[in-house]
Amino acid sequence: MNRKTECGNMGQEFLNIMDPEDVKKIIDDIPMNRRVEKVLLGDSLNRVIVEDIHATINLPPFRKTSMDGYAVIAEDTFKASEDYPISLKLMEVIGAGDVPKKELTSGFCTEVSTGAPVPVGTTGVVMVEFTERNNGEIIIYESAAIGQNIAGEGSDVKEGELLLKRNTRITPDKIGVLSAIGMKKVTVFQKPRVAIISTGNEIISPNDKLTYGKIYDINSMTISSAVKACGCVPVHTEIVKDNYNALKNKINEFKDVDLILTSGGTSAGTGDVLREVLDDLGEVLVHGVAVKPGKPTIIGRLKNDDDFKYLFGLPGNPVAALMVFRVFFAQFLMKMASRTSTHLNDNVQKLKLSRRYRPARGRCHYLLVKIEGKNAIPILKDSGAISSLAEADGFIKIPKNIEILEKGDSVQIFPLVDF
Amino acid sequence: MNRKTECGNMGQEFLNIMDPEDVKKIIDDIPMNRRVEKVLLGDSLNRVIVEDIHATINLPPFRKTSMDGYAVIAEDTFKASEDYPISLKLMEVIGAGDVPKKELTSGFCTEVSTGAPVPVGTTGVVMVEFTERNNGEIIIYESAAIGQNIAGEGSDVKEGELLLKRNTRITPDKIGVLSAIGMKKVTVFQKPRVAIISTGNEIISPNDKLTYGKIYDINSMTISSAVKACGCVPVHTEIVKDNYNALKNKINEFKDVDLILTSGGTSAGTGDVLREVLDDLGEVLVHGVAVKPGKPTIIGRLKNDDDFKYLFGLPGNPVAALMVFRVFFAQFLMKMASRTSTHLNDNVQKLKLSRRYRPARGRCHYLLVKIEGKNAIPILKDSGAISSLAEADGFIKIPKNIEILEKGDSVQIFPLVDF
Repeated sequence: MNRKTECGNMGQEFLNIMDPEDVKKIIDDIPMNRRVEKVLLGDSLNRVIVEDIHATINLPPFRKTSMDGYAVIAEDTFKASEDYPISLKLMEVIGAGDVPKKELTSGFCTEVSTGAPVPVGTTGVVMVEFTERNNGEIIIYESAAIGQNIAGEGSDVKEGELLLKRNTRITPDKIGVLSAIGMKKVTVFQKPRVAIISTGNEIISPNDKLTYGKIYDINSMTISSAVKACGCVPVHTEIVKDNYNALKNKINEFKDVDLILTSGGTSAGTGDVLREVLDDLGEVLVHGVAVKPGKPTIIGRLKNDDDFKYLFGLPGNPVAALMVFRVFFAQFLMKMASRTSTHLNDNVQKLKLSRRYRPARGRCHYLLVKIEGKNAIPILKDSGAISSLAEADGFIKIPKNIEILEKGDSVQIFPLVDF
Repeated sequence: MNRKTECGNMGQEFLNIMDPEDVKKIIDDIPMNRRVEKVLLGDSLNRVIVEDIHATINLPPFRKTSMDGYAVIAEDTFKASEDYPISLKLMEVIGAGDVPKKELTSGFCTEVSTGAPVPVGTTGVVMVEFTERNNGEIIIYESAAIGQNIAGEGSDVKEGELLLKRNTRITPDKIGVLSAIGMKKVTVFQKPRVAIISTGNEIISPNDKLTYGKIYDINSMTISSAVKACGCVPVHTEIVKDNYNALKNKINEFKDVDLILTSGGTSAGTGDVLREVLDDLGEVLVHGVAVKPGKPTIIGRLKNDDDFKYLFGLPGNPVAALMVFRVFFAQFLMKMASRTSTHLNDNVQKLKLSRRYRPARGRCHYLLVKIEGKNAIPILKDSGAISSLAEADGFIKIPKNIEILEKGDSVQIFPLVDF
C-alpha cells in the first residue's frame, strides 16, 4: 500500500520539508575552495586578485616635466617677474618620448613637452604661459621654485611599493594601475566552473527533431545563462536520461567542476532517481523546501577524492527551476565568483498589487508578476507555463504566514536573474 | 608672439571652452545606427532582440498531464469519493518521453508521470495522492473533472503567437522562452565596435622594453576595459605616434567601427595633432570643456562615405582620460549597447568629507576619493598620478560655483567605471 495525501507519491517520499531559512543556512555553510589562474590583463576585468601586487618599476620611471614649458636651473629664474623678465638661451627641444642630449647649464633652458624627460641639471620647469619666444631667446616672466613642475623618478610610486591589495576587484582604473608597470598577466581567482545537467526522458536538444511526447530542453539554457550572469562558467551542459545509471555515471564524470546543478529528477515521481544517486554517492542535505514553486529542491554533498563536491538539484519545471536558482543559489554562485551580490536586492521597486491574491498555504510563495505602470499584475499560470516567463517582469515574495493579499497592497518587485 | 595666460599654449588654442552641460547635449544628439547580427541563443545573454519573436510550435507540443497520476475517462470517476471509491483496470504505464500505445476505453486507466502524453480518449487525470493500487487494479478516491490536470496542445502558447517583443533584453528567463520553441539563433543588435587609440611618442606596449623617456601604455587597457564594462567591444587597440600622418592614416583605416576613442593628442601642446586631423577629416564639435580634470577633451565628427563617424578624444593623462570617459561618454556607450545605465548613478553613497577642500575655480571639478568608514578622503595628487587610481574608491562632483567644501560636508560618492 502506497497512499499518502501530504507529500507522498508513487516513488519515495521527500526527506523532510525544510523552511527556506534553514536551507539558506545550510547553503551559507558550504565551504568554498577557490582555484586561481593567470589571465591576460586585458581579460581580467571584474576578476579578483589573489595576492598583493607590488610595483616592479618606479613611476614615473624617469624624471619628467608635468607641464609644457621650459626646463631651467631654478636659480637662474629667481629674480624673474612680469615687470622684470629674464632671458635664457634655448638649448634643445625635447618632446614626450625624446631623450635630452645636453646637460642644462646656467643661462640656458630646454623646451619640454608634458611627459618629456628633463635634462640633467634641471631644477625647475617654467610653464609656457609665463614665457615668450624672442629670436631664439626665451623670455621668462615668472620664477620657478626648486622642483616646480617636475615629477621625480618614483615620485608617484616607488619600485616595491604595495600597489593593490589581494582581494581587490579589477575595475578599469585598477587595470590602468597594472598597465602602468607593464604587467601582462595577473593571478586571479578562477571563475567557478559549474556543470549543468537537465534530466528527463522527454527532453531533447534543439538539434534534434521534435517528435511526439518530447519537448525541447529549456533548463540547460536558462540555468547556464543564469550561471553566467552570476560570474561563473557553465561547463558540460548535458541532457541525461532520468535513469539511475545514466545520472550516476554523468555525475561521476564531473571531477573538474566546482559545483553541479541539475534540474528535474527531484520530485519523487516514478522516474525520479536523483535522490537515490545522491544517497549512494554521498549525502542528501536537503530534499524538499516549504516554498512554491520549488518544493522538490535537493542539495547533495558528494565525496570527491579527499574532498566534497556539492550538487544543487533544481525542480524540472522551468519556472520553478529558475526561481529556486534565483532565491537559493544565485547568491552562493556570486559569492563563489567574488561578485558583489548587491544587485540581487537592488532596484527593488514598490508597486501596488492589481488584484486580490490568495497564496499557497504553509509555504513561502514566489509569484511572478508583470508590471504595468504602478501596478504589479500576478501571473496566474501554473509553474510549467512558458508564457509566464515570457510575460514576467519580476516576482514578489509572500511569506508563509500570509493568508491573503488584498488588491492595492504594496508589494516589492524583485528582478529575476538579471545582474 | 605667442603668449597667452588663459588657455593658450605653444600650439593652437582650444576651440572654445564649453560647459559640461552643453557638451552632454551635443553627445545626446549624436545619432546611433545600430547594426544587427544573429547569435547562438547561448551567447545571447543581455543582448537585445531586434524583431518580435513569434512561437514556431505549440506549447506544450502535445496533450500531456501536469501531475503524476492516472489518465481516466472523467465520466468513469464522477461517482468516486473517499467513502465510495471506484476501481479501474490499469492499461499501461507512460513515463515522460514515452508514447502511449493504447487508446483509453471505459473502465480502464493509464498511469502517467508529470509531462507524459495522455492517451487518446483521456478526459481527466486523477492525482496519485487520491488513488491506491490493489492487485493491478487502481482504486480511485476522487472524481476527475473534465480536463483536470491536462495541459492541452498549445494551451500555454499557440503556434504563431507573439512570444517576445522587439527591444526585449534577453535575460535567463527569456532564454528559457526561446529554448522552449527550440530556437538556436536569435537576431540581436550588434555590440557596438569601438576603436581605441593611445597617442604619444613616449608610449610603449608592455611587450616592448622600457627605455629612458618611455612609459607603458595605460590608456589603451583602461579605456578598453571601460568600453567592455559598457557592453561594447573594443577593437583595434593601438598605440599611434603623436604625428599628423600617423594619426590621420590610422583613423582612416577604421571604417568598420561604430566609434573611435582616442587618448592624448588633445591638449594643444607642441606635438598635439588630433584637432588638425579632425579639422581635415571632418569637423570638431567640442574642444575644451570647463571641467577638472579633462579640459582638453575633444569631440569630432568624421565624414564616412555618406554617413558620419564620431571620435571622442580623451586627455592623455590616465586619470583625466578615465574620468572624462566616465562622466561624458560611458552613458553614450551604454545606450549604444542597449544597456540600462542605471548603475551609473546607483549605489551612490553619502559620506562626510574628511578635510576642507578648495576646488578648481570656474570649472566643474571631479575629485577622486578614498573611502574609510564614513569618511571620503580627497586624493590630493595631480591627475597623472597612478597611485591615485590605485587608492581611489570613487569620486565626488563639485559644481563650478562652489568656492570651498568644509570638513564634514556631506558628499555623494560616484563609482568609477564599475557596472
